[in-house]
This record gives sequence, C-alpha cells and structure tokens, in this order.
Amino acid sequence: MLTKNQTKRILSLSKKKQRSQEQMFVSEGVKVTQEFLDAQYEPIEIFSTDSFYAQYSNAFVHTSTQELSKISSLKTPNKVLAIFRIPKPKPIDDSALILALDDLNNPGNLGTIIRLCDWFGIRDLVCSPATVDCYNSKVIQAAMGSHTRVNINYTALAPLIKSADNAMGTFMEGTSVYASNFPNSGILVFGNEANGISENISSLLTEKLSIPRFGAFKKTESLNVANAVSIFLSEYRRRSTET
Amino acid sequence: MLTKNQTKRILSLSKKKQRSQEQMFVSEGVKVTQEFLDAQYEPIEIFSTDSFYAQYSNAFVHTSTQELSKISSLKTPNKVLAIFRIPKPKPIDDSALILALDDLNNPGNLGTIIRLCDWFGIRDLVCSPATVDCYNSKVIQAAMGSHTRVNINYTALAPLIKSADNAMGTFMEGTSVYASNFPNSGILVFGNEANGISENISSLLTEKLSIPRFGAFKKTESLNVANAVSIFLSEYRRRSTET
Repeated sequence: MLTKNQTKRILSLSKKKQRSQEQMFVSEGVKVTQEFLDAQYEPIEIFSTDSFYAQYSNAFVHTSTQELSKISSLKTPNKVLAIFRIPKPKPIDDSALILALDDLNNPGNLGTIIRLCDWFGIRDLVCSPATVDCYNSKVIQAAMGSHTRVNINYTALAPLIKSADNAMGTFMEGTSVYASNFPNSGILVFGNEANGISENISSLLTEKLSIPRFGAFKKTESLNVANAVSIFLSEYRRRSTET
Repeated sequence: MLTKNQTKRILSLSKKKQRSQEQMFVSEGVKVTQEFLDAQYEPIEIFSTDSFYAQYSNAFVHTSTQELSKISSLKTPNKVLAIFRIPKPKPIDDSALILALDDLNNPGNLGTIIRLCDWFGIRDLVCSPATVDCYNSKVIQAAMGSHTRVNINYTALAPLIKSADNAMGTFMEGTSVYASNFPNSGILVFGNEANGISENISSLLTEKLSIPRFGAFKKTESLNVANAVSIFLSEYRRRSTET
C-alpha cells in the first residue's frame, strides 16, 4: 500500500529543486532499476508489484499496478519504481578525453549522450550548470542505466578548458574531424541544441572541429547533437584501434 | 476561416491509411514547410496566420492562431500548416550506397535517419513495408525538410538485397566497421529498434558489421539505431575523403 506521503514525495522528485535538496532521484522499469541496484546505488524506497525487490531494501513497498500508475512518469508504468540516493561524483580524470556539454537543454539528448559515453568508454562527462539535470526522469530512462558507468559532474566549463591539454569544440564550420589531429586527452565541448557553444566558452577553445556535409545539396541545417557526439566518439575510438 | 471539412480532412491525414488513400501529407512550421515549397512539392492547401503564403497556392486559407491550434499536432502550433501531395519516389539507384531499414518503428528515429542521409549525401533510403510511414507528422517534423533531398521507397528488402553488389547488415556482433572492407556501393541494412534485423533478411546478408564497444565495462546494451546510422555513414564518408 502506498501512503499519501510516499506519493507526494515521489511526485515532488520530478522537480530538479527537490531532487537537489533531497539528493535523491527516481528510476522506473525493471532494466534500468536493476542497473542501479547492481551498481550498489542506495535504494531509499522501492515500489513494485513484484516482491522480488524486497531483498534490496527494508523500505520495500508492495504496490498494485493501479498505484504504480499514479506515481509513474511513463505512459505504461513498468512493474518497479525506486527512489535512489544521488551518489557524489568522483573527481574528473584529465588524463583521458573528457566530454563537456555547454548548456544542453533536451533530456532525451543528454540520456543518449550518457549512453554513448558508456558505449565508447568515456569516463568523464562534464555539464555546465545550466545543462538539463542528469537525474531528470527522462534522462534516467533514455540513458538506460549508463549513469552507473559514467562519472557526471556539473561545474563551470571555463576553468576546466583553461587547464586542459587540448581544448576542442564542435562547430558547423571548422577543421574536418576526419582530417584533424584528434588527441588522446583533452576536453571536447558540444553546445546547446539551438545556439551551439556560447561565446565565452568558444573563445577559450584552441581547436574548432566539424563534421563535413556530403552529397550534392549540402542544405541540411544541422545534425542532432547526440548524432554529432556519436560520430566524434566513434572517430576518437577508431583511431585508438589503428595504433 | 477554417471550415469543418478542412479541419476534418487535416485531422484525418494523421492516419496512415488516409494519407495513403489521398496521397497527401501534412507539414507544420515555417522552416519545414518552406523546404517543401522551395522543392516544388505541390501544396494542396496552406493554412497560415501570415498572408505571405498566399503566393504559393490559390487554396490559401488565412487562419487565426486559435484555429491553427485546433488542427496542429504540435504543442505550440507554428504559424503555418500545409497539405502537400506525396510525390512519386524515383527508381532506386544501385550504383551508390543504399540505406535500408527493416521494420523500423519509431518516427523520431526515422526522421533523424532521413536527416542523416541528407547530411551524408545518401540518395536512396529504402524502407521495408512495415517500417513507420515517412509521411507521419512526427517523421516530417524530425526530418526538418530532408525529405526533399532523399529518395524514399517502401518495398520488400529481400529482392533488393539479392541483387545488390554488397549486402551488409549491422548487428551487435560482427566485423568491426573500422576494420571492415566498406565498399562504395551496395545495401546497408539496419534493423528494428527492439529486435534488430529479421531472420529472413539476416540470412541473405553477406557481411555482418558492428560498432565495437569500448571502455572497461562493455555493458551498454545497445546503441540507438539513429546513432548507429550516424556512425556508419560517417565512417563510409570518411573513407571517401581519404582516397
């Protein structure tokens, strides 16, 4: 049985302010929730139609499907929803390539980018403070558990860029990523969906990279930022397979 | 002023069956609609708060913002909505790389893939008959006008694959795309979001390609299909810049 207070708490965690105050987030669905459990994230409360989850927390609450649908952010609620403690991010390791996001807005894009970092073995993802919160429920769902394998920090990008071995950014116009001298370490910045990289960050970058456009028309206005990330990370890793 | 019949017709075009019967689709928003107009798609009717569009069609209807919101599929209706005739696709050109989709489900993915074909100069996109309709409004919005520069055919994939110079498919396990002998022509198949490439198509393919997973964990379950497409097309074009 779900109490009024529990319902209220879960729904309140849909707000960034509340998540940040309580240092908690909500995960939904069997697969994603299992990833957090397996990675030893601390479950504060688990709500499920399946008593399987009782093993993970004393604060296990057996709920009906109807109750789950009241607290779910999904159209078709899955059989488990859990509240986890937000872990403290680890310090940034600047001996490898760091991916940085300058005011990214869209939660689906951020989730996909976290998944791409996981796929391509990028340990550190750094987000500017105005970037969408990585514990937003849409980000959690889109990243499919990759949060557990990517170290995400929210911090001002400028100081990091200033101290980086290589400070690269992606632009519509720039050196082709295929022809560029893509280094093994440094910081690679992607900008906001509508406005790209902001002026004050752009002026600090020493390399401006782009993905060339092909074909007869060359009229496509832009690539989706998550697609751009996938192309850059693939190219970065391809080179590591050649040496 | 918008008549009841006009409203009914526009709303009915949200159904695939109706679009297919009438051979018409709906476009929304200034940018996307302008792309179709510039590419000489035949506007059947244009509804807008801006009389600028009267130049494109005798069937121009001046509408209020309130009227537009009644016929719009968008949360925030943009100032123009148009009905266009679906053009006949051109024959498939098998002298270049053809991208094929085997039962792709998600309209956002299809829209992004059309945009990627446009960016990377892939002329022919072939969709299996069960693939989501490319004139679905979500596909139209996600592709941002790239429909006008990519030739999209819906047809059974098997005959095409049988006659192709090279029949490649993307799988979770296969030759690394970086190490493979990626040919200039042939067909490259991507599968359904949940199930991948179907058995009967898979058995016809002569090359099974994959994107290697990197990093210490190698636990990411899969890449989003649009991200996979972006990586394959980037790799295909990168090679063309090297020769």
